[in-house]
Amino acid sequence: MDPKSPEFIIDQPLKILGFVFDELSATRVSGHLTLTEKCCQPFKVLHGGVSALIAEALASLGAGIASGFKRVAGIHLSIHHLRPAALGEIVFAESFPVSVGKNIQVWEVRLWKAKKTETPDNKIMVSTSRVTLFCGLPIPDHVKDAPDELKKVISKL
Amino acid sequence: MDPKSPEFIIDQPLKILGFVFDELSATRVSGHLTLTEKCCQPFKVLHGGVSALIAEALASLGAGIASGFKRVAGIHLSIHHLRPAALGEIVFAESFPVSVGKNIQVWEVRLWKAKKTETPDNKIMVSTSRVTLFCGLPIPDHVKDAPDELKKVISKL
Amino acid sequence: MDPKSPEFIIDQPLKILGFVFDELSATRVSGHLTLTEKCCQPFKVLHGGVSALIAEALASLGAGIASGFKRVAGIHLSIHHLRPAALGEIVFAESFPVSVGKNIQVWEVRLWKAKKTETPDNKIMVSTSRVTLFCGLPIPDHVKDAPDELKKVISKL
Amino acid sequence: MDPKSPEFIIDQPLKILGFVFDELSATRVSGHLTLTEKCCQPFKVLHGGVSALIAEALASLGAGIASGFKRVAGIHLSIHHLRPAALGEIVFAESFPVSVGKNIQVWEVRLWKAKKTETPDNKIMVSTSRVTLFCGLPIPDHVKDAPDELKKVISKL
Repeated sequence: MDPKSPEFIIDQPLKILGFVFDELSATRVSGHLTLTEKCCQPFKVLHGGVSALIAEALASLGAGIASGFKRVAGIHLSIHHLRPAALGEIVFAESFPVSVGKNIQVWEVRLWKAKKTETPDNKIMVSTSRVTLFCGLPIPDHVKDAPDELKKVISKL
Repeated sequence: MDPKSPEFIIDQPLKILGFVFDELSATRVSGHLTLTEKCCQPFKVLHGGVSALIAEALASLGAGIASGFKRVAGIHLSIHHLRPAALGEIVFAESFPVSVGKNIQVWEVRLWKAKKTETPDNKIMVSTSRVTLFCGLPIPDHVKDAPDELKKVISKL
Repeated sequence: MDPKSPEFIIDQPLKILGFVFDELSATRVSGHLTLTEKCCQPFKVLHGGVSALIAEALASLGAGIASGFKRVAGIHLSIHHLRPAALGEIVFAESFPVSVGKNIQVWEVRLWKAKKTETPDNKIMVSTSRVTLFCGLPIPDHVKDAPDELKKVISKL
Repeated sequence: MDPKSPEFIIDQPLKILGFVFDELSATRVSGHLTLTEKCCQPFKVLHGGVSALIAEALASLGAGIASGFKRVAGIHLSIHHLRPAALGEIVFAESFPVSVGKNIQVWEVRLWKAKKTETPDNKIMVSTSRVTLFCGLPIPDHVKDAPDELKKVISKL
């Protein structure tokens, strides 16, 4: 895994699990993940912790962009696991802002998989989350370049 | 990474991040994690999603053991991120039951790091979670051996 | 306050605060509340606990109807308080199911107030909640008539 | 109900339900409530919304005192309902800080009832909550006296 690849700079844990970003903006962050053994728990379904990891990652990236690349920190995650997704299936993820304040942002994150049958609303909701984030934390010297690096990498995606 | 190693069978995502189990029982699950790049977000501190992954994993294992190795599924996680932990630090994790009912269990999970100074209570709380789990889901045929395999592996740890 | 009035039978705490139901069905429960001193905290804005009370009440009623008037019990509430609502303002509330399973239901509840200006989307979101409910609890003898009474009262509203 | 009585100034909704404060400090807020019809849902057990109201109220008061009577606002509540409490029983409530930061505080709130038998730990946990609060909001002119009034009333309790 190339440590200088864009996805690696944006979010290493997600990259290691095989997550692929589709969209990264101040109003929507999305992507998808094919479930391999690395993403599953012993009963060969999506690990609830991987769902939670995706939720925190997408919401934090979205809030960071929406804050103008300030430093944001997640302070709370609330995630409901609704339906299982099995080894080998593809899970789609989407995040959008519920509330964008000066200090506090709240982002919703939805994970779903496609129904086998071609029905109009062919989404089966796998999990749904709310992430509360605090914006504008000070940026320590040793990571002062992180915002610009993120901005550069995201613009190239 | 040996796919037949006990840790790999118990929880692959945790194993990939380098988490090490210390205790696995019906009343307490614990372990620790040295923070490498794989566990961090762009500002070189513990990724909130990794905290959440640890919380879901430890609570699910504890609830599974407490249910007599029935199949349990997390239905909700609520996690508060309180203090950052930096690249290179060691984070300790502990989970214990808040409520063990026939259908519903609630487990608390605490992550902390040691204070630099040797004070009596030398814990700095990094995150604190509550995981709600539903117990007694049916076990599909293709994973019918999972409970016994888990039992065997955990007993050898 | 007439203890035999329909609203009193449906939900006493809500009735005492002055909440008025608009719709009660298996797919949508709604109503509104004019904020008096009884609903406010010392800074003369809607008390967060009153928002939470409305969320639990509407979700429980909706889940009860959706379960065919079985006994349901809320097991978890997660509520985000987004914007204040002041003494004298009217707050509108709406609840709808996110997931309706045999044992577990998840309902969303939204509280909002109208913007002063007539813009298309003239809602200011005050709070947004997710309520997790467990369905099918046994009904003790001394309250065995409660489901029928609820059904009768709701049908007359 | 005397609108100038201390309890009324501190928290009207709680006062209307009959809640009695026992302790009010920067490190612990506690009290108790005898369950009357006003506090119950149709199955004659404690209404989950009343539990949530108590949690928000106690945490907000504690955080307000801990912040030096600044204006605090709850931004998130996560409450687990664990065991029912029936009409006529007494429920005890206690709140204490999990984390007190400059901007963000997290308080835990526990509600319990006494076991019928005199066992050492004779608490049956009814609900357990975490409340996240944002501190230091501006105080509008029309309520600029609220902090001093609260301080005066609490000191007399």
